[in-house]
Amino acid sequence: MGAGALRLLLIAGCVTSLRAIGGEEGVIYVLAELVVVLLAAKIGGELMERLGQPAVLGELLAGIGLSALAMEQVAGAAWLRESALVSTFAELGAVLLLFEVGLETHFNELAEVGVSAVIVALIGVAAPSLLGYAVSSLWLPRDPWYVHLFIGATLAATSVGITARVLKDLGCLDRKESRIILGAAVVDDVLGLIVLAVVSGLVTSVARTGRADFSVGPVLLIIGKSIAFLAVAIWLGRRLHLNLARWGARFRVPGVALVVALSHCFSLAALAGWVGLAPIVGAFAAGLVLEESDYDLYQEKGELPIASLIRPVAMLFVPVFFVMMGIRVDLRAVASVEMLGLAALLTVAAIAGKQACALGVRDRTLRRTAIGIGMIPRGEVGLIFVGLGASLAVGGKSILNPVTTSALIVMVILTTVVTPPLLKWSLGGARPK
Amino acid sequence: MGAGALRLLLIAGCVTSLRAIGGEEGVIYVLAELVVVLLAAKIGGELMERLGQPAVLGELLAGIGLSALAMEQVAGAAWLRESALVSTFAELGAVLLLFEVGLETHFNELAEVGVSAVIVALIGVAAPSLLGYAVSSLWLPRDPWYVHLFIGATLAATSVGITARVLKDLGCLDRKESRIILGAAVVDDVLGLIVLAVVSGLVTSVARTGRADFSVGPVLLIIGKSIAFLAVAIWLGRRLHLNLARWGARFRVPGVALVVALSHCFSLAALAGWVGLAPIVGAFAAGLVLEESDYDLYQEKGELPIASLIRPVAMLFVPVFFVMMGIRVDLRAVASVEMLGLAALLTVAAIAGKQACALGVRDRTLRRTAIGIGMIPRGEVGLIFVGLGASLAVGGKSILNPVTTSALIVMVILTTVVTPPLLKWSLGGARPK
Repeated sequence: MGAGALRLLLIAGCVTSLRAIGGEEGVIYVLAELVVVLLAAKIGGELMERLGQPAVLGELLAGIGLSALAMEQVAGAAWLRESALVSTFAELGAVLLLFEVGLETHFNELAEVGVSAVIVALIGVAAPSLLGYAVSSLWLPRDPWYVHLFIGATLAATSVGITARVLKDLGCLDRKESRIILGAAVVDDVLGLIVLAVVSGLVTSVARTGRADFSVGPVLLIIGKSIAFLAVAIWLGRRLHLNLARWGARFRVPGVALVVALSHCFSLAALAGWVGLAPIVGAFAAGLVLEESDYDLYQEKGELPIASLIRPVAMLFVPVFFVMMGIRVDLRAVASVEMLGLAALLTVAAIAGKQACALGVRDRTLRRTAIGIGMIPRGEVGLIFVGLGASLAVGGKSILNPVTTSALIVMVILTTVVTPPLLKWSLGGARPK
Repeated sequence: MGAGALRLLLIAGCVTSLRAIGGEEGVIYVLAELVVVLLAAKIGGELMERLGQPAVLGELLAGIGLSALAMEQVAGAAWLRESALVSTFAELGAVLLLFEVGLETHFNELAEVGVSAVIVALIGVAAPSLLGYAVSSLWLPRDPWYVHLFIGATLAATSVGITARVLKDLGCLDRKESRIILGAAVVDDVLGLIVLAVVSGLVTSVARTGRADFSVGPVLLIIGKSIAFLAVAIWLGRRLHLNLARWGARFRVPGVALVVALSHCFSLAALAGWVGLAPIVGAFAAGLVLEESDYDLYQEKGELPIASLIRPVAMLFVPVFFVMMGIRVDLRAVASVEMLGLAALLTVAAIAGKQACALGVRDRTLRRTAIGIGMIPRGEVGLIFVGLGASLAVGGKSILNPVTTSALIVMVILTTVVTPPLLKWSLGGARPK
């Protein structure tokens, strides 16, 4: 029945999509597109899951598949690539994804993991960024400094989800190596977002002033603005959110908990965008300051826990983001030496940079290789950086051109694919505790 | 703290919204708009709830409030009215609302309520439609027949939610009158959707062929097409959905249940749109054939019940629909005799038409007035009709102009407001069982 259902479903999806596109405009398009994107995401995710790979990779590959259809001039797929509405859905997906990542990041965990994790994280952000900057300036000598900086920053991110999943499957979550990796990945998230805030702020400032030369003044200004925003978002955001949540708890109409949480997330995201930072920075800060216990009063009234309310909304929007990232891969550029060379060098830089992390571990009895390997996958966080870079423009020109964008996406895929087998090998012989 | 929180929140919302609009384009707008719309909806809903009125009325009034701001040229509100993205969110809200209404409608309930409810429902659809047609053709003699037909159809809908809520508050849900009202309202939903399918199909056909004269051939064609679509949607949709749900249950990745349910809803909605019917007709059919038990396999895997997954998604989109309907009210037209006269006559027709329902009740021991009154509120279903009418165009001109749209919305508000006190009065002295 599986194959039969698959066929039926694909035919139904394609027919709906293509016919709708031949017909009227408006909401019918959006409905058909969402069906195609959501089903493609789940089928791709499931295929990768069965191959022992992270599901997010499958969603990305589903998008690349649709991109191939678009190249073949299949009407629905070509339209999907240019749909402003689906792009906005994807951007809302990125905002909700970072909100959820922020929700899962807890400050007290940062305190527990200790000095090793912080040093590992600092090296893990600095080393790949520098290597990425070097690779980019050698391979793309005609691009300006902020492009190199952005590419370097993209290499800084660590996607903790993929590593955590592999460690869990191996039954190794209790080992000290695992705790350092996961702790460092959490610190990485925060550092990465600061780096992203600074870099995207710099690019926005270059775009606004038209002055592309590097000088210390604007950089310090942006760093100051980013830190000020995060501080305000965290301190004031926490207070405002608590007030709003307590006030909303006195409402009699249902659904207030979700509206409070989403308003909190969307406000900080819009605020971040307004001050010239990426909206996802605000969304991450919003998640960081939100505690599930803030919604205890709503649960007493019979509402679901806040995470269970946010989850379905994220489930609708987040896969759209990953599929759209895949659709952005320019398959005509894939065969070019320029793209493949850049992708290969960036992948090497991304992997080598994270291996430097091992030097930050002082305890020599630990398997230090495993720690470096655990930090390799860029996953969804890397993609968020790429998506942002493709949407940032200086002088009407996107700072990441199709070749660079494709190379970065290939780098994200490769770093994600190599991690599970390498991690198994490096922790080899480890027995579940 | 309430007033303080309210002030803070409104200031934050407005500042975010207005500043964002002065700044960059894109996702920041959408985020700020969603915050304003969602908070306005909940605050309006809560105020009405406290006044003993249905929350949906508050969401509508919140939109009218924003419409007033738009008239005063407040930037954010004016922009909201023209935002294509927020309009699409509103349309998706209508689709999800009808999907939920369909989910709550069960075929076996129809069998239980018996002949009385069916006769009440038939009269309740026919009488107000005819009165509405008459009022419209007298008041708007220059408008073509399909405008009168559409206005008449809008008067057919009954919003069961509002009456059910009042009956529950009075402790009267077990009385025979209540069972007839609720049963008839369910039949009304189905009949109303068929009427809507036929009428919107006729208008689309007029728009396509350019032939505005009334003839029996096309009408029969549309009626045939509507019935055929509903039959196919219900029989084939049920089978396809069951297959898809069973197939998806074997997936290991999370979130498949929601994707299956939404794909089912969106596919049928897009299909309905493709064959020239309203997408909401497809969404209602999708909800009708979906049984919660289809998702038992997913619950065994630890997922939430399907209704709990759809709820938060609907909570995000549905209030946007009601607020946008309120924003559509043209306040400049409110003071005009033309609009007020039409609104008054339509309200009288809507109320009088439903009183004819009482004639369908054969059991003379029942309080027949209460049954007629229970069918009065048009609520969300009436609004869905109005929203569709405003989006249907013949020769580039919307079939419902701002004056007619506003009059219909005022009719919906009035029928909804008068029901709770009238129902209490007509069931007066009734003790909770």
